[in-house]
Amino acid sequence: LLQADYRSYQDGANDVRNRTNTRAGSLDANGFHDANDTALLRRIRPTIQGTLFGKYDFRFTPEFAGGSASAVDAYIDARLDPAFKIRAGKYKPFVGLERLQGGSDIKFVERSYVTNAILPNRDVGVSVYGDVFGDKLSYAVGVNNGVVDGGNATTGNEFDGSKEVTARLFATPFKDDANALSGLGFGIAGTYTNIDGERNLDFTNTSAADATRNGLPSYLTDGQQTFFRYGSASVADGKRSRITPQASYYYGPLGLITEYARVNQDVSLLTNTTSNAPSVIAANSSKTLSHDAWQVAVSYLLTGEDASFRGVKPKNNFDIDKGGWGAWELVARYSEINLDSDTFKNKNTGSFSTGTYANLSESAKSAKSWTAGVNWYLNQNAKVQLNYSHTSFDGGAGIGITAVNAAGTNIRDRQSENALLARFQVAF
Amino acid sequence: LLQADYRSYQDGANDVRNRTNTRAGSLDANGFHDANDTALLRRIRPTIQGTLFGKYDFRFTPEFAGGSASAVDAYIDARLDPAFKIRAGKYKPFVGLERLQGGSDIKFVERSYVTNAILPNRDVGVSVYGDVFGDKLSYAVGVNNGVVDGGNATTGNEFDGSKEVTARLFATPFKDDANALSGLGFGIAGTYTNIDGERNLDFTNTSAADATRNGLPSYLTDGQQTFFRYGSASVADGKRSRITPQASYYYGPLGLITEYARVNQDVSLLTNTTSNAPSVIAANSSKTLSHDAWQVAVSYLLTGEDASFRGVKPKNNFDIDKGGWGAWELVARYSEINLDSDTFKNKNTGSFSTGTYANLSESAKSAKSWTAGVNWYLNQNAKVQLNYSHTSFDGGAGIGITAVNAAGTNIRDRQSENALLARFQVAF
Amino acid sequence: LLQADYRSYQDGANDVRNRTNTRAGSLDANGFHDANDTALLRRIRPTIQGTLFGKYDFRFTPEFAGGSASAVDAYIDARLDPAFKIRAGKYKPFVGLERLQGGSDIKFVERSYVTNAILPNRDVGVSVYGDVFGDKLSYAVGVNNGVVDGGNATTGNEFDGSKEVTARLFATPFKDDANALSGLGFGIAGTYTNIDGERNLDFTNTSAADATRNGLPSYLTDGQQTFFRYGSASVADGKRSRITPQASYYYGPLGLITEYARVNQDVSLLTNTTSNAPSVIAANSSKTLSHDAWQVAVSYLLTGEDASFRGVKPKNNFDIDKGGWGAWELVARYSEINLDSDTFKNKNTGSFSTGTYANLSESAKSAKSWTAGVNWYLNQNAKVQLNYSHTSFDGGAGIGITAVNAAGTNIRDRQSENALLARFQVAF
Repeated sequence: LLQADYRSYQDGANDVRNRTNTRAGSLDANGFHDANDTALLRRIRPTIQGTLFGKYDFRFTPEFAGGSASAVDAYIDARLDPAFKIRAGKYKPFVGLERLQGGSDIKFVERSYVTNAILPNRDVGVSVYGDVFGDKLSYAVGVNNGVVDGGNATTGNEFDGSKEVTARLFATPFKDDANALSGLGFGIAGTYTNIDGERNLDFTNTSAADATRNGLPSYLTDGQQTFFRYGSASVADGKRSRITPQASYYYGPLGLITEYARVNQDVSLLTNTTSNAPSVIAANSSKTLSHDAWQVAVSYLLTGEDASFRGVKPKNNFDIDKGGWGAWELVARYSEINLDSDTFKNKNTGSFSTGTYANLSESAKSAKSWTAGVNWYLNQNAKVQLNYSHTSFDGGAGIGITAVNAAGTNIRDRQSENALLARFQVAF
Repeated sequence: LLQADYRSYQDGANDVRNRTNTRAGSLDANGFHDANDTALLRRIRPTIQGTLFGKYDFRFTPEFAGGSASAVDAYIDARLDPAFKIRAGKYKPFVGLERLQGGSDIKFVERSYVTNAILPNRDVGVSVYGDVFGDKLSYAVGVNNGVVDGGNATTGNEFDGSKEVTARLFATPFKDDANALSGLGFGIAGTYTNIDGERNLDFTNTSAADATRNGLPSYLTDGQQTFFRYGSASVADGKRSRITPQASYYYGPLGLITEYARVNQDVSLLTNTTSNAPSVIAANSSKTLSHDAWQVAVSYLLTGEDASFRGVKPKNNFDIDKGGWGAWELVARYSEINLDSDTFKNKNTGSFSTGTYANLSESAKSAKSWTAGVNWYLNQNAKVQLNYSHTSFDGGAGIGITAVNAAGTNIRDRQSENALLARFQVAF
Repeated sequence: LLQADYRSYQDGANDVRNRTNTRAGSLDANGFHDANDTALLRRIRPTIQGTLFGKYDFRFTPEFAGGSASAVDAYIDARLDPAFKIRAGKYKPFVGLERLQGGSDIKFVERSYVTNAILPNRDVGVSVYGDVFGDKLSYAVGVNNGVVDGGNATTGNEFDGSKEVTARLFATPFKDDANALSGLGFGIAGTYTNIDGERNLDFTNTSAADATRNGLPSYLTDGQQTFFRYGSASVADGKRSRITPQASYYYGPLGLITEYARVNQDVSLLTNTTSNAPSVIAANSSKTLSHDAWQVAVSYLLTGEDASFRGVKPKNNFDIDKGGWGAWELVARYSEINLDSDTFKNKNTGSFSTGTYANLSESAKSAKSWTAGVNWYLNQNAKVQLNYSHTSFDGGAGIGITAVNAAGTNIRDRQSENALLARFQVAF
């Protein structure tokens, strides 16, 4: 799978708040840089998979995009029975619906907030799964190392010993019926764990400080710019649970996916984040924050093919000489994410300026994205995608480079993002 | 080759002494963290190999486990004659017996102290090797960049210009006889080099400081936790030599490997290890330290297959429907490593608290491991391994977080490690 | 493609000037280290490529040499017509002649200064290219992210939004004639962009400082030691353009390549390069610097094969038993690079000691290399190369470790480099 992308920003800010530094380019009135137009390789994944003795599958997917290489998938399946299969290694935990759709089959250039911001991406562990009741109900339960929201686990040691439990049920009760409901599927999934983030990120006795080891995520816009980041004193300190109802529907050329996800995350503040000093949890600083997101996405194939959860095989391949034009599809999506408003306030004093879990003059309280696009399937292997995406924010920008005041009255909305995302894809 | 592991610690400390910092989790009375249970991918190695024109072999083995990717093996063989072959590139130097056994064929989840702690893992260079006297004697001599104990060289430039010479002889004198000695092999191998570690690890004029460039190793337990680390002022400064007698024996279902290894390493102390300042070798601080390790490992196939240095092909593959149960093997090993006691003392004053090469309140003087396990070969490609490992230490823990005193009287033994190591493996 | 190299330096300095630090080894009178002899893997590139539906090609080349892995090539070709092809992804921009020759086909162990020091290596973007006038003229135009001189772009986001335009024309007007001119090709290429380097490299709000993000290159000798480096206050700040006339000629066993390249780079100085503080362009510090390089390389096949831009297929493969000796080729090259003399002077005062773009006591003003070698093609897949390279410098070394004085009178020439470069190569 090879995806060559181009991102062009009509409006929108770089992923970093940079109110006092001046790097490349100039700052706007609120202390942000313009987002940079860029060509990039989004996915370079030469997958190796196979089956041994009819029952044991393996799948290895390396990822070479992004400047280094790593293992995206590396797992073993033992298909002992259709109703009882075991998967061990690194894989997509059975949680999010859009996540379980392959990276070459997704209808938009980037997935929604439900998938990218809240639910796990890849994790390491073991799952048992299968299809029961005449394949009308799929179940999966797993025990994994656990990852932050939207996270992709490394294949190495975990720094926290607690495991994350996942569970999912997905029903397609009318799949054998020849009526308008046969393409309906719905389900619910969730995760649960305890997670204590690293308390002292300047841990000079061992390896370099790793900002991801506080156990907390950052969130990206549809244009892949960071719009939310926890403060440097914040650390995961307790329970993390997620729940996500989900549904899909396919009827002729029409496809629809909708999902909702909520994460409850226990967060505390550290007394000390400076270099190489001991750091403890500040007294009375613990709080359970609840963030949620949802999406509705619709697709319609103009050239007569049937929509499905998988990719599209055009009826006529694109061929200038013979006159075929491939398959054409229109897509539209609304997706939003809402942060807990307590994230930006001091738990005890209500101040916006000190003792907050995140800084409202740098991180937005919500992001709402409209995305419209067209997919051109030249043949079953080659695809061209074009998305236009508009994202508006609630908060996230201060006035100039002055700090946020205690009452939070000098906060503006972050500049809306208007991005054109293009992709050339070959699946091999 | 894909290995999905799970490590569970009944007892045992994290690899880092952390007497004054508080990171995730709480510290025990001696200032250690509990080791973290974790799922991980141990090896993800899609090997590519081939033969050109009947005589020129190449082998490339990438490693995707552990969060990034690198080349484990990348070499060219010219088999000019069975008695004269040339290997160039990155490969296993012909030194340790258990090391030369493939990562998919080893009888335990992790190799012994002889292999992992003392002898080289992978290096870059050229070797000449072959079989003589009717294939009853194998020889190998090589010139490599040189690696620290247990080290896996990068494929790039070496920072030290001196080369490491390796040599090995291994005899199987009775291999053509049809008696109880036909499966006996024994030999001896060694390495020799001069190595000057980097003297100033805060080398800001070029690249980031690299703690491995002092030319000295760390040592891991059977449960893969670091139990020995040189002090930050220590630096390799002179000769390094290793010698390792070794033997294996296979008779019907029984297999046995035993090895001994000793390393003599010249170590000095630096006057200054703080940031960005010049640093020189402290006067009268040089010392040759001798560490050694040995192992005896026994395996027994319960299901009637013949044991060998290579993997096991079951007589009956595992198949629930047809009733096959694969091959089952019991394994047991004792392995220990003993550090030179001068490592923990000031060469001139005998103090344990200042001017030592390593800190006895953080690093243990010895580690002794009993490992027992069972291997289940489902078929020739799939394997499940379960090991239970008990490791006891001599020294390595202070009392609370107070520093070690000059007489070394406030030192306890590091808490024993009891670990359950499980593996699902598919070789493809 | 697997290349196992050995580099041995009779004379020559390590890539780092280290006048006040003492690391491994001892310093010479001018404060340099001797270059380290080393074995290394130069290229480990298991390429995957293919064609879909006769018109859509993909190529993916990972690189595992050098300690990590990354994507060297990852692109999609749409060959809509011989005169109109589109390439998208990461690829060699159509600029340098020797660069477009494959890494397995180059006649020397390392490419010339024109290719390695001035022209782009790999970039991410889109190009349109094709052959017109009976395939006698090739054209290519591209829009890429842009890379520094000799640079290899990552596949990820670019930090600067401006795109680099490339264009190339290459003519082979006599290719269908059966005369001495049929093997002649000549052309011209260039690049143009605006590039603002990062102004504050200690950008602690996001990720680690990245010294390559000042938008400026370093230059290497033929022996791959850095001999030129911009000062830490220098930053790219404006236009960058390159132009390169180029020609090749093949006649029977004789091959010849010659190229010239000039880069014009706008450079400014920063007021502040210390940790974590804002930094702005110093007033009146901007300057357009012009560096250039050229090369002439000749090859001659002794064993009767025809020379070409591609690799060599021996008439008789090497085989001791049957008496074949493969193909043998002699090669020689002269290549030099000349830095703008304003690089080492204060623009306003003419001083050599302060306000310069690079330090003449650490970086040389020019490098001139003679390289002679022999290539032994054992068969079409296996090759052995041996190069001897002599490089002399103009400036680049101070006297002892004292700083350069304002008049620049205490500058010596950097010690000449004499290097033996050997390679074993298998292409698979």
